[in-house]
Amino acid sequence: MPFTAVELIETKRDGGALSRDAIEWLIRAYTDGSVADYQMSAMAMAVYLNGLNAEELAAWTGAMLHSGDVLDFSDIPAAKVDKHSTGGVGDKISIPLAPLVASVGVVVPMMSGRGLGHTGGTLDKLETIPGFTSSLDPDRFRQVLHAHGLVLAGQSATLVPADRMLYALRDATGTVPSLPLIASSIMSKKLAEGLDGLVLDVKTGSGAFMPTLEGSRELAHTMVGIGARHGVTTTALITWMGQPLGREVGNTNEIRESIDVLRGEGPEDVTELILAFGEVMLELAGIDGGRAVLTEAMESGRALQKFVDVVVAQGGDPSVIESPELLPVCAHEAVITAERDGYVTRCDARTIGSAATRLGAGRDRKEDAIDPGVGITLEAKVGDRVEVGDPLARVRFGDPARWQTHEKALTSAWTIGDSAPEPQALVIERIDSP
Amino acid sequence: MPFTAVELIETKRDGGALSRDAIEWLIRAYTDGSVADYQMSAMAMAVYLNGLNAEELAAWTGAMLHSGDVLDFSDIPAAKVDKHSTGGVGDKISIPLAPLVASVGVVVPMMSGRGLGHTGGTLDKLETIPGFTSSLDPDRFRQVLHAHGLVLAGQSATLVPADRMLYALRDATGTVPSLPLIASSIMSKKLAEGLDGLVLDVKTGSGAFMPTLEGSRELAHTMVGIGARHGVTTTALITWMGQPLGREVGNTNEIRESIDVLRGEGPEDVTELILAFGEVMLELAGIDGGRAVLTEAMESGRALQKFVDVVVAQGGDPSVIESPELLPVCAHEAVITAERDGYVTRCDARTIGSAATRLGAGRDRKEDAIDPGVGITLEAKVGDRVEVGDPLARVRFGDPARWQTHEKALTSAWTIGDSAPEPQALVIERIDSP
Repeated sequence: MPFTAVELIETKRDGGALSRDAIEWLIRAYTDGSVADYQMSAMAMAVYLNGLNAEELAAWTGAMLHSGDVLDFSDIPAAKVDKHSTGGVGDKISIPLAPLVASVGVVVPMMSGRGLGHTGGTLDKLETIPGFTSSLDPDRFRQVLHAHGLVLAGQSATLVPADRMLYALRDATGTVPSLPLIASSIMSKKLAEGLDGLVLDVKTGSGAFMPTLEGSRELAHTMVGIGARHGVTTTALITWMGQPLGREVGNTNEIRESIDVLRGEGPEDVTELILAFGEVMLELAGIDGGRAVLTEAMESGRALQKFVDVVVAQGGDPSVIESPELLPVCAHEAVITAERDGYVTRCDARTIGSAATRLGAGRDRKEDAIDPGVGITLEAKVGDRVEVGDPLARVRFGDPARWQTHEKALTSAWTIGDSAPEPQALVIERIDSP
Repeated sequence: MPFTAVELIETKRDGGALSRDAIEWLIRAYTDGSVADYQMSAMAMAVYLNGLNAEELAAWTGAMLHSGDVLDFSDIPAAKVDKHSTGGVGDKISIPLAPLVASVGVVVPMMSGRGLGHTGGTLDKLETIPGFTSSLDPDRFRQVLHAHGLVLAGQSATLVPADRMLYALRDATGTVPSLPLIASSIMSKKLAEGLDGLVLDVKTGSGAFMPTLEGSRELAHTMVGIGARHGVTTTALITWMGQPLGREVGNTNEIRESIDVLRGEGPEDVTELILAFGEVMLELAGIDGGRAVLTEAMESGRALQKFVDVVVAQGGDPSVIESPELLPVCAHEAVITAERDGYVTRCDARTIGSAATRLGAGRDRKEDAIDPGVGITLEAKVGDRVEVGDPLARVRFGDPARWQTHEKALTSAWTIGDSAPEPQALVIERIDSP
């Protein structure tokens, strides 16, 4: 055994750098169980507090990536491009975006995650569709991708096992919001998908895990650099997550809104972001036409049809796409109203996301169950004019006691002022592979 | 549940202070298993890197102390005083010191530890005596103490269970050399012994766990402060651990030397330290007479007789005390010799301690077995005049292959120069309870 866990922990604890060999040994030994959870959590805290330099980060990501299978879709000639978001509130972008770009020829082997903390998760939202499964074995994953140029799956158990272990550990040990650990976690999973290109939605603002712009920018540059080093052209857009995206927060609610978007009837901000990311994905795939092609795919119904096809291929009931009112909805409704006349100056993403989670739309711990019918429909967002008594949000919940507990917190998400604030750009910055 | 492990880890990770309630909850939850090892190791690393303030440290020590039984010997009217060393090489001080002061009326309920890393442990040395057991149940512990005013035991399983768990965890996670964790570990165990007074030997120099004088001084002040806060008068002596104490390193070797000391025939440095600590223990116990009383106890044989009585009470064979040549000794001997004429300017404690451990006298991991017959007899120490070819040390070992591997490292412990260095004071500083 060339290394011991203790000596590597001590090196990082004392601010030193770990060699590539040391990092590869560590990740391998953690994956095979010879480095214990309690050793890896001490290492994670040392990394949290003392960081990883660029070479350590590349080695760490590479070691994670190679802890399991790495997919190979080179038998599919078209370019494989995926999109990943660092997570936000009302962030259903992936759900309409993936079928949209797939309908115009981008191959999208999408692997998504579940909601955690104040954010929702793509898989939880998709599983609101009766019968839909995101657990596909490798053969089925490949079949669906070959047949439709799109698959909407969960992380395969054989991909990046080190990340699955390390993420669960970080979640329980206060070591999640570490830039190198976030970057290596995201990128190791994406690099294992056999992609040609990757677009990253790096959120910034109160609803993002990385709330400052500088932090988001550093994370974006870091991940783009890792992608490039591994031969996957990577572009990041830093986007605003100060307020929720769209009008809908919650699982049923966000599927409904995603269908509206695919029909070309979605809210302006979600549609704008989908076109922005779609454009980048077309570029990365080498497909011409830009926004015009994407708009046409929405208007013609091709994008929605692609969604229907994949939902059916993954066992889902397509009738809910035609009739979204069939999706589960909680029995109780409450309305939050404006306490004064004025303009909404704040509609805080984190506060709304946390309230939705507490009401049952999300989970604080991995093992918590979610209630797909819990949802918040935003009736007034930043810049909107309201009069006293106007609805700010309509809330669906299953448990009136929980609502009573969290109503006040949710209401605190809105601030109403005398004048409308300056509009905030949705896409703040674009960062391309060097 | 008023707290969660994650929120407390996050507070310490971000440099905040934990409340007394939070610390008490944490230590209790760790002891009962509801806070996992992997959470406590992340916390330990955060404490290592961000520290504990004085109030947190007092709370942490108190919570550890009350994680198990706290002994009460108030039925013994005489003062109960123990001594603890932070650990060094050739540090057999406790073994002759405890019977010496007990023979003049100090009651010593001594609980010691095993060797770890480059240092030996009092229990390992005592168990070189055939039949001797340091595992006493509480009743037997009390009986021996009542009968002899002295007991030489291991840490009872019911005392400070939180420390036993946390120490093992720190040992595996690179979080041992943290001043607040060292101070709270030592003091929680000592405060659980039901003492009236405590003397601490805080080592400084290469062979100490805290190699710098400032570090040792801070540790000493911290522990003396904790003792005072808990009503146990505590005095620390900061003592020099640049070279091993005495002439003998290794388990059999150090028992032999301890017997010499009790007979009044020990090496000057060990005898000097025993008198220095003995004097403080007499003071703390309110017994007059100082060094004269102690010297008399050695010369009269009373001190040695006390040792024999306690060894017998704890199952040991007293014949080895009369005839130390009966103690186990390894078959092989090698001699390290001077490569030039001159004065020994360095006889490095850590190098010698590490070599002894590697040869089998100590353990790198708790579960390692030790070989009591491995030992190093120092023939030349700092200040001694040597000529080329003179012996520097005689080494006993059981495994010639190991000796070949470590001979060079051991030899590197000595430096020979042209002139004798300035003598180094053995007791550097005394720190009393405020």
